[in-house]
Amino acid sequence: MKFTSQDHQMMQRAISLAKQGIYTTAPNPNVGCVLVKNGQIIGEGAHLKAGEPHAEVHALRQAGKDAENATAYVTLEPCSHYGRTPPCAEGLIKAGVAKVICAMVDPNPQVAGRGLAMLNEAGIETASGLLEADARALNPSFLQRMETGKPFVQLKMAASLDGKTALENGVSQWITSKEARQDVQRYRAQAGAILSTSKTVVEDNASLNVRWEELPISIQKSYQKDTVRQPLRIILDRQHQLTPDLKLFMTEGEVVTASSQYTHSITSQDNHLHCNVTEDGQLNLSEIIDKVAKAHNVNHIWVEAGATLAASMIKADLVDELIIYLAPKLMGADGRSLLNLVGLKAMSEAIELDITDVRMVGKDIRITAKIVR
Amino acid sequence: MKFTSQDHQMMQRAISLAKQGIYTTAPNPNVGCVLVKNGQIIGEGAHLKAGEPHAEVHALRQAGKDAENATAYVTLEPCSHYGRTPPCAEGLIKAGVAKVICAMVDPNPQVAGRGLAMLNEAGIETASGLLEADARALNPSFLQRMETGKPFVQLKMAASLDGKTALENGVSQWITSKEARQDVQRYRAQAGAILSTSKTVVEDNASLNVRWEELPISIQKSYQKDTVRQPLRIILDRQHQLTPDLKLFMTEGEVVTASSQYTHSITSQDNHLHCNVTEDGQLNLSEIIDKVAKAHNVNHIWVEAGATLAASMIKADLVDELIIYLAPKLMGADGRSLLNLVGLKAMSEAIELDITDVRMVGKDIRITAKIVR
Repeated sequence: MKFTSQDHQMMQRAISLAKQGIYTTAPNPNVGCVLVKNGQIIGEGAHLKAGEPHAEVHALRQAGKDAENATAYVTLEPCSHYGRTPPCAEGLIKAGVAKVICAMVDPNPQVAGRGLAMLNEAGIETASGLLEADARALNPSFLQRMETGKPFVQLKMAASLDGKTALENGVSQWITSKEARQDVQRYRAQAGAILSTSKTVVEDNASLNVRWEELPISIQKSYQKDTVRQPLRIILDRQHQLTPDLKLFMTEGEVVTASSQYTHSITSQDNHLHCNVTEDGQLNLSEIIDKVAKAHNVNHIWVEAGATLAASMIKADLVDELIIYLAPKLMGADGRSLLNLVGLKAMSEAIELDITDVRMVGKDIRITAKIVR
Repeated sequence: MKFTSQDHQMMQRAISLAKQGIYTTAPNPNVGCVLVKNGQIIGEGAHLKAGEPHAEVHALRQAGKDAENATAYVTLEPCSHYGRTPPCAEGLIKAGVAKVICAMVDPNPQVAGRGLAMLNEAGIETASGLLEADARALNPSFLQRMETGKPFVQLKMAASLDGKTALENGVSQWITSKEARQDVQRYRAQAGAILSTSKTVVEDNASLNVRWEELPISIQKSYQKDTVRQPLRIILDRQHQLTPDLKLFMTEGEVVTASSQYTHSITSQDNHLHCNVTEDGQLNLSEIIDKVAKAHNVNHIWVEAGATLAASMIKADLVDELIIYLAPKLMGADGRSLLNLVGLKAMSEAIELDITDVRMVGKDIRITAKIVR
């Protein structure tokens, strides 16, 4: 079918509504819905939090009886399955809407066209594909995992302009600016899980959680402190170095430890992720990423650790996107490198990147890049 | 005096004319001139090459007798001294112009207000300061040298995103892209001199000249091949390693060698720059920069060498601007660093930069930065 300019306008509205959930819906997708009758919006809503009503439910509630014969614009195909809430397709049928236009079919294997089929069977006209690219951009991690089974993995690195994280003697305070640290908080807030190592946690006494006070002010305005969603913190703890007095355990948010055996009571057994050790004595990162996604229903993993984990993640081909902060400093040839990768013999062994974005964040440069495979 | 909107428009035209000389006027400044009578442009011109007519001369020739009672808009105060051409102030007086508006007073000690004074004495109305900031931007190097006595020194560096110029074994081909190399040609073409070392020249058999074929196409369009001006090539040759078979000597452009004694005939004695050796056995870079500027009348030096000269230049506080190309690659912790600087003990010893521009050049990132003193 051909979409009209009113269709475009209404779907655009649904897309902006969907963005309200960007920090809170994980692991659910961001979805917006607008109900329209005689050219007027009679109800609208966004999905805000997993377990709470979907976008369609908010819109239907607002419209009430007016929903009969209305057209629904939804950024993602209405769900067809019973999760923590009843299927939205059913809700739309009961309300008597005449037509449902969605931006894209839900690739979630539990839906995958069944929502539209249910609506059609009930005699409701359906269409999909309106502003699909914009709708896809709302949920890159959710879509990647639904379509490939693999979570979206972002690796954060920070260094001076000459690629150093510390001086030769280990001194490293305040390499990047306040604005860059706020930017990191924003990335953390979007992630389903933060992956790090006990080394980073112990050395920096890092809490690795989302601190509302440190989010950029622009985000604080639309994301209230009492609704903050804490990502899971997955800590690789091969040698069981975590101790209960660490900030990690004193701060909000769940901690999951990963090691080859569950030997201590630092976390409950449910929050221990068992993984095998590879031939070189390291934890099997691929297995961990896989288990984090499946066992904890995580679409988006933010990796924030040191040069060794960064190199291991890249070597194991587990990174979808690099987020690199470069501070306006030169720290010298004998400083510590941001990537613990050695022994390259030919330029063809160098890791090739495709830079997709570069911008200033405060006084620092932030580079977004993908690895060329 | 108050400037009218016509004044602004005409000076804007003079400024765009001045840009025609950006690759060719060194060591002279870029200057444009527009002659206006009854609201019409009756003559215009730009200074294109040292030794050739100044902007005012071109404009006066075009206007002919019409110049009488016209208003002249000049981006820089007309000169008052006999150089290779007679003073422009005299030419304007002879032509009978009624008024001269210039964007800025010429800080050249040989002019410095005398041009305007000559005009006033001849009964010509003068004014200055119209679009001064834009006019200053035409000649950053000329102005810095005239105002401070020091040439403008740009240091080029190129590395991978993790700050490496080569693998541990020295392999380094093609770190940056064709577009970045074209961009380097553009910087070379703007410079009065290129400073490098015999190590770089010998190892890379580098010609260090401007190759018209390698300039960006946008530049080629306005800069004809037969007008290419080759910057002086100043090569630090402390240990007399240059040999006459090097490309350096086979390519267009003058070569000046710098060392503590003139011992061989690789260049004429006029093209040898004698300089002292410091306590640590290195050539005195500050002395060299000073002599290049004074003895060879150079405003703008483009430094293009290795990690050692880069570090020495920075340590000696001789760099006004860094131009850093970062290629989208990761080359590993044991690679060779872009800056041969070691032994920093505290973060306060790190070199602080102020990044003034960051952008993509082809697939690479180009960073422009000043050193915070």
